[in-house]
Amino acid sequence: MTDYTHADPYDVRRLIREEKITTPTSGMCAGYAQANLAIVPRDIAYDFLLFTQRNPKPCPILEVSDVGSRYLKTIAKDCDIATDFPRYRIYEKGVMTGEYLNVVDFWRDDLVSFLIGCSFSFESELIDVGIEMRHNTEGCNVPMYITNIPTNPAGIFNGPMTVSMRPIPYEQIVRAVTVSATMPRVHGAPIHIGDPSVIGIKDISKPDFGDPVTIKDGEVPVFWPCGVTPQSVLMNVKPDFVITHAPGHMLITDIKNADLK
Amino acid sequence: MTDYTHADPYDVRRLIREEKITTPTSGMCAGYAQANLAIVPRDIAYDFLLFTQRNPKPCPILEVSDVGSRYLKTIAKDCDIATDFPRYRIYEKGVMTGEYLNVVDFWRDDLVSFLIGCSFSFESELIDVGIEMRHNTEGCNVPMYITNIPTNPAGIFNGPMTVSMRPIPYEQIVRAVTVSATMPRVHGAPIHIGDPSVIGIKDISKPDFGDPVTIKDGEVPVFWPCGVTPQSVLMNVKPDFVITHAPGHMLITDIKNADLK
Repeated sequence: MTDYTHADPYDVRRLIREEKITTPTSGMCAGYAQANLAIVPRDIAYDFLLFTQRNPKPCPILEVSDVGSRYLKTIAKDCDIATDFPRYRIYEKGVMTGEYLNVVDFWRDDLVSFLIGCSFSFESELIDVGIEMRHNTEGCNVPMYITNIPTNPAGIFNGPMTVSMRPIPYEQIVRAVTVSATMPRVHGAPIHIGDPSVIGIKDISKPDFGDPVTIKDGEVPVFWPCGVTPQSVLMNVKPDFVITHAPGHMLITDIKNADLK
Repeated sequence: MTDYTHADPYDVRRLIREEKITTPTSGMCAGYAQANLAIVPRDIAYDFLLFTQRNPKPCPILEVSDVGSRYLKTIAKDCDIATDFPRYRIYEKGVMTGEYLNVVDFWRDDLVSFLIGCSFSFESELIDVGIEMRHNTEGCNVPMYITNIPTNPAGIFNGPMTVSMRPIPYEQIVRAVTVSATMPRVHGAPIHIGDPSVIGIKDISKPDFGDPVTIKDGEVPVFWPCGVTPQSVLMNVKPDFVITHAPGHMLITDIKNADLK
């Protein structure tokens, strides 16, 4: 299996477009930001855009496409939104109706694509300063929890914030806060540090999404706003038609994580 | 004349609503952010919201109202958008058709209000660190220039960026950059330092809006993205109906400038 750790984002997007790469993108093109995808019809795009404007921490927008356009203008050169993610999911009335390697045949003139920043960006900065990402060490997904923190509603969209959790040793907590705070365009600083019950999490060993991770003695659970929030808020209203990326199968952008500071 | 420098924003908004204050708001409620206003019909609100998303530096959004609502949820308590600015202007097909102390009689169910951050916020921080605002000293408006810097178009909206200029002594330039950069929600760092011709300004003594100010020996013109940009881009398309605040007659919010850091 080829190692794409130091590959160029443009080259990897081409291989994805040619369906020579169909795997999760984690670890590919080190240093470059990856993006989540939510494609919605124009008739609900205003409310969704307003929701992201009112909730920038869980919904950090990297780019919004023009209506009907499959192309991006700023975060990825010569990118085709309908082919350059390794894997897509289509939801109709809130139910997943299929998973596809491209969505060319499903494209419509009224679709708007939201490219949303991802925690990989601040994680790579945390790792750079010597903070362990326990879910990486344990080879699983980051644990995510639905909280009692309300989002700011917008039109048809509302619901609680979802957070991701990383256990951090006491002596590294301040560093984790200050380093992630420098990246407000990709979730930014934590939203909570410590007792999970304060934000409505009853059992830290049972995440709502992802996998549980070990919290060792001397470590504190630290919670960040999570990009699952816009997706779950979107699915709550069971829209007629939505396309997302399949979990972990992201767009690799031309934007360096360092440029998101 | 009463001095409102240290008055409470809520109290001043009430006096404005009762039309006991009808003057410009500059200097009122020191430390609190003031907001520009653009009210547009829903049919162009999506493109305008997307324009602000794509151009956050010249268009820093403090809040977007719900469609048809005269109320705000976050930046000002018990505020009525149609009465709590001292003075409004109505534009029809790009032409100003009237100036009013309130716009209650013109309200429509399809109107969306955009509350946009204002340079007063970072100016107060610059003054706090000992940087003179020449336009204040000279008792005039800040000079503003149309540049050759393109904005990122969105739907029907496009056009060049407008900037404001403040002359800064060489030894204070770095400080002016670092202090304003801490406030990305209200224009943030300068967009250009030095030679005006680099950004398409032919004659620094002839601003397109506002008034010229003296640039002394040892001072450099420093340019910031300006909130006039969204207004001029909006007017370019000559919408059927738009309400703005009258220049200088802003909303005084409950948000402290320090909270915009």
